[in-house]
Amino acid sequence: MVRILSGIQPTGRFHWGNYFGAIRQYIDLQNGRETAFYFIANLHALTTIRDRERIRRNVLDAATDLLALGLDPERATLFVQSDVPEVSELSWLLMTVTPMGLLERCHAYKDKKSKGLPAGTGLFAYPVLMAADILAYDSDIVPVGEDQVQHVEVCRDIAGTFNHHYGDVLVLPKAQVLESSARVPGLDGEKMSKSYGNTIGIFEEPKALKKKIMGIKTDSRPMEEPKEPETDHLYQLYSLFAGPEQVAEMAAMYRRGGFGYGTVKKELAAIAESFFSEAHQRRRELEANPRIVQDVLDRGAATAREKAGVVLRRVQDACGLTRSV
Amino acid sequence: MVRILSGIQPTGRFHWGNYFGAIRQYIDLQNGRETAFYFIANLHALTTIRDRERIRRNVLDAATDLLALGLDPERATLFVQSDVPEVSELSWLLMTVTPMGLLERCHAYKDKKSKGLPAGTGLFAYPVLMAADILAYDSDIVPVGEDQVQHVEVCRDIAGTFNHHYGDVLVLPKAQVLESSARVPGLDGEKMSKSYGNTIGIFEEPKALKKKIMGIKTDSRPMEEPKEPETDHLYQLYSLFAGPEQVAEMAAMYRRGGFGYGTVKKELAAIAESFFSEAHQRRRELEANPRIVQDVLDRGAATAREKAGVVLRRVQDACGLTRSV
Repeated sequence: MVRILSGIQPTGRFHWGNYFGAIRQYIDLQNGRETAFYFIANLHALTTIRDRERIRRNVLDAATDLLALGLDPERATLFVQSDVPEVSELSWLLMTVTPMGLLERCHAYKDKKSKGLPAGTGLFAYPVLMAADILAYDSDIVPVGEDQVQHVEVCRDIAGTFNHHYGDVLVLPKAQVLESSARVPGLDGEKMSKSYGNTIGIFEEPKALKKKIMGIKTDSRPMEEPKEPETDHLYQLYSLFAGPEQVAEMAAMYRRGGFGYGTVKKELAAIAESFFSEAHQRRRELEANPRIVQDVLDRGAATAREKAGVVLRRVQDACGLTRSV
Repeated sequence: MVRILSGIQPTGRFHWGNYFGAIRQYIDLQNGRETAFYFIANLHALTTIRDRERIRRNVLDAATDLLALGLDPERATLFVQSDVPEVSELSWLLMTVTPMGLLERCHAYKDKKSKGLPAGTGLFAYPVLMAADILAYDSDIVPVGEDQVQHVEVCRDIAGTFNHHYGDVLVLPKAQVLESSARVPGLDGEKMSKSYGNTIGIFEEPKALKKKIMGIKTDSRPMEEPKEPETDHLYQLYSLFAGPEQVAEMAAMYRRGGFGYGTVKKELAAIAESFFSEAHQRRRELEANPRIVQDVLDRGAATAREKAGVVLRRVQDACGLTRSV
């Protein structure tokens, strides 16, 4: 069976950009014929977050949010990266076949170095840990954003080198670039991203949500003027939530002109609230029973460790690390 | 209780240089009041050996040799590095606090790079794995050769940085340079070392041993001439094995002159054979019962994992990797 794997960074609460850019696709994938493994990448997060409580809270928030949004632990395996020691073990074994040049070319490290910033070994070795994350489960497909394609290629290179030395041991994965046909603009019209501080959270309370949406920047063209909907970020946001008919109606209104952006904002707030209302409800239930989330993660870890254990033993055996009389 | 830790590279069969340079000291330490942990560093060996059977054989040989030479598993803990997954887990956590500059300054990597040779990430990251080896057991003292002092300093730096970020979590170790008052010359009079191909194995069969010793290079001074013993490598080798009285007699013979090097070689062969005869006997017994060696390593791994597990949980907790409701 084809295995899909993806890691989710626990960098804080998820926003609309995360949802339409990745989470929605992850949840859709659980309905296919593939086996889906999703992990919350707390070991990777340590390269940027050195705050015990923040890491813990972010991991729990990420798991709770994903379950609330519809990730079904009966159909996909959700686990925390650090709950699978096999990945760290594999990581060292992969390092022994990784040329420095391969990591020196990786953009995250290269960018930082070219700016003259001091780089940590964690940032430098990140692609090897990511390779271990992928290879530990014999993953076939890794759905990623454009910016992570290089790291999946590095993973393939490392696995190829390992196989060259030790035989046909590791499964070479393929990157599958997430289709994010829809652009998700932020409060300022730029791409929604935590680093721009222009995000709208998935789990904002209705009042806060309305306030944020009402504060979205708009242009100052007169109300009467007809407007081209496709280039307007309010329209773009509305299109993410609305069905085809609603979208067509909104587009017609733009082209007619004679409306205020306030009207669009109110419709956006209403449709977004309703779109996520079931998820909000589920999240409140999970918050009241955090044990449910922990149980999902415990079961996920057990499933992941079982698979990773098989792969690790295969790798260890190939390297000559298994003992026997 | 003070804990001593040292790693032994499974690079092949041990020679006299290994014994008088390190192994003898390790075995002596088991009789002190400290807790001694010794591991066979197969994960490190992977950076240079990519031959499954060679790694496996070397690990088993190293363990068997050490037990034959008197390492007592009731008094010291002997285990194989890869049997303790906690070390690999700790290794990544340490990487996230290790600046690249620290590793770039390490001589093994620097030397290779300065020669323009392509370096692997294993060689580069080696000091972090070594730091994990040390820190995983709250080691206080690390007996090492001069060439490894830098790596223990790097370990202290990494532990210090970790503690700076996360509180007083890791024990800072101290290097203890192994006293090798005795120089161990090889067949050609140079320092005995596998890389010079001038070694005499501890477990050579008597016939092979005699042949090797008879082939030791000597100078061509006439027999009659009195000789200064201290500068002669045959004498130096003899001194390693002989008691003070025998050494004094041999020195007197050198100073008198009128003897052939063949005589010294014969005496050296006889005393070396007798010095290691008990170890040879024990090794034959262990070879006949390899299960004994595996049991020692199994018990060693269990003891090591118990300690490493406690330390790892402390570290994970400090980083925020432990989950709970």
